[in-house]
Amino acid sequence: MMRSNKKIPSITIIGAGNVGHHMAIAFHQQGIPITQIYSRKKRNAQKLAKLVQAIGVNDLKEISAGQDLYIIAVNDDAIEPVAVTMSQHIQKDALVVHTSGACPSILLKKHFRHFGVFYPLQSFSKDKPVNWRTIPLCIHAKYKRDLSKLDHLAQLLSKQVLRVDDEQRAQLHLAAVFVNNFTNFCYEIGNNILQAKDLPFEILLPLIQQTIDKINAQPEGQKNPSLLQTGPAIRRDQDTINQHLNRLNQQFPQYRELYMEMTKGIQSSKSKNKK
Amino acid sequence: MMRSNKKIPSITIIGAGNVGHHMAIAFHQQGIPITQIYSRKKRNAQKLAKLVQAIGVNDLKEISAGQDLYIIAVNDDAIEPVAVTMSQHIQKDALVVHTSGACPSILLKKHFRHFGVFYPLQSFSKDKPVNWRTIPLCIHAKYKRDLSKLDHLAQLLSKQVLRVDDEQRAQLHLAAVFVNNFTNFCYEIGNNILQAKDLPFEILLPLIQQTIDKINAQPEGQKNPSLLQTGPAIRRDQDTINQHLNRLNQQFPQYRELYMEMTKGIQSSKSKNKK
Repeated sequence: MMRSNKKIPSITIIGAGNVGHHMAIAFHQQGIPITQIYSRKKRNAQKLAKLVQAIGVNDLKEISAGQDLYIIAVNDDAIEPVAVTMSQHIQKDALVVHTSGACPSILLKKHFRHFGVFYPLQSFSKDKPVNWRTIPLCIHAKYKRDLSKLDHLAQLLSKQVLRVDDEQRAQLHLAAVFVNNFTNFCYEIGNNILQAKDLPFEILLPLIQQTIDKINAQPEGQKNPSLLQTGPAIRRDQDTINQHLNRLNQQFPQYRELYMEMTKGIQSSKSKNKK
Repeated sequence: MMRSNKKIPSITIIGAGNVGHHMAIAFHQQGIPITQIYSRKKRNAQKLAKLVQAIGVNDLKEISAGQDLYIIAVNDDAIEPVAVTMSQHIQKDALVVHTSGACPSILLKKHFRHFGVFYPLQSFSKDKPVNWRTIPLCIHAKYKRDLSKLDHLAQLLSKQVLRVDDEQRAQLHLAAVFVNNFTNFCYEIGNNILQAKDLPFEILLPLIQQTIDKINAQPEGQKNPSLLQTGPAIRRDQDTINQHLNRLNQQFPQYRELYMEMTKGIQSSKSKNKK
């Protein structure tokens, strides 16, 4: 995690989606030169390129061969085809990384001698500004020199840089789906349930924040959400559970199964803790 | 929602659990006298009573008859039996409320002429301090005078006081289970998934906070979590979904069903938005 004093590399970013967008801007703001931005759509490439004083291209063959670092920030299923085309154009000693949580680095290994991963553990939206200092950056590379290059770059953006191998990163990505996507869906359900009775979603925001504050209040290294569980499931309050299931049956039958699965999960977790 | 200048009532709190504990302390800190604290366990009653300069009792018959307000803050299934015993001892014109999200006020109506609800929309833990100013307080009463009494009291504690009828409160409670209990269970699963590969739960905290910050950034009155959804489910990225399901199969088969139910829910919500 030491900060090295390596020369700042010249970077090309492949992809102008959410991740590519925020990453290009973050590097630019740190004074790290972005040479080119690639996007399938020329307009998108040029729009982002303009923001970071780079050149926008929409043909992978136009990517300049001699960059130090290529960051592939495209959809998971586009990583491989992009890599194939790129490998025919760029120099053999260039470092190529992707930004995906779900894709193994082996996908790049087939095409590049120097490969790695530069994965920000965050969910990006283009129009929402991002505080990179607080985003955990998970890096991985086969060679020490490449890893140290990525480490240096990552530390310019974030105060939390982690060396995470393929197996750990896939695990992290799965956990992220639970705490981000599935949690957000719970919020969506809460919103739908309130709307049905003309109640504003805002009422729930203090409770939502408090759910996290309770975890934040647990000591570092001893955080354990299961110790904070409350509600009818963990109390085994079957009257309230039945009342809720009836209510869902009448208004939102599509959420009934989820309610039961959650309740079952919370209750078996409790019995495990008790053992 | 106007602040009235009614005389401050004398209060007896029935129950020294999480809600009773925090409510007694909050009233005491506001200079509102608590006369008695009841708990089945004498030790608990006396412990809390000492904190708020009240008298602790463990027999409902010892509750003094002439108080202005009785707050029943016991488990849902104990509300009715407590009310039955109380109704034989206290004066007919006393106001009796419970603090439950799930119980209808009709439960008290059978036993008291003046009944109501004083429901804080928050999940309490005894050892965690509470910021009452930010907790939505949902009040309900049949008579205007009672409602105004509760409104006055509630506004001493919270800046968000809402008049919420039985039907709305039950709906609110169901929504709270989704955004609090079920979300916390998602955090618990995230924690278990990381622990299995020696990764610290702390890595997920920025992502967890960001999930809420995105909602906070939406304009007041237009908050809609479904517009913020990201991840493999909404992208219909079946490769990643299958990879996650395999991973769960191998390590946490008990979460597989929940993953599928969540994914299905997110995907049908999307297709609904698209229509």
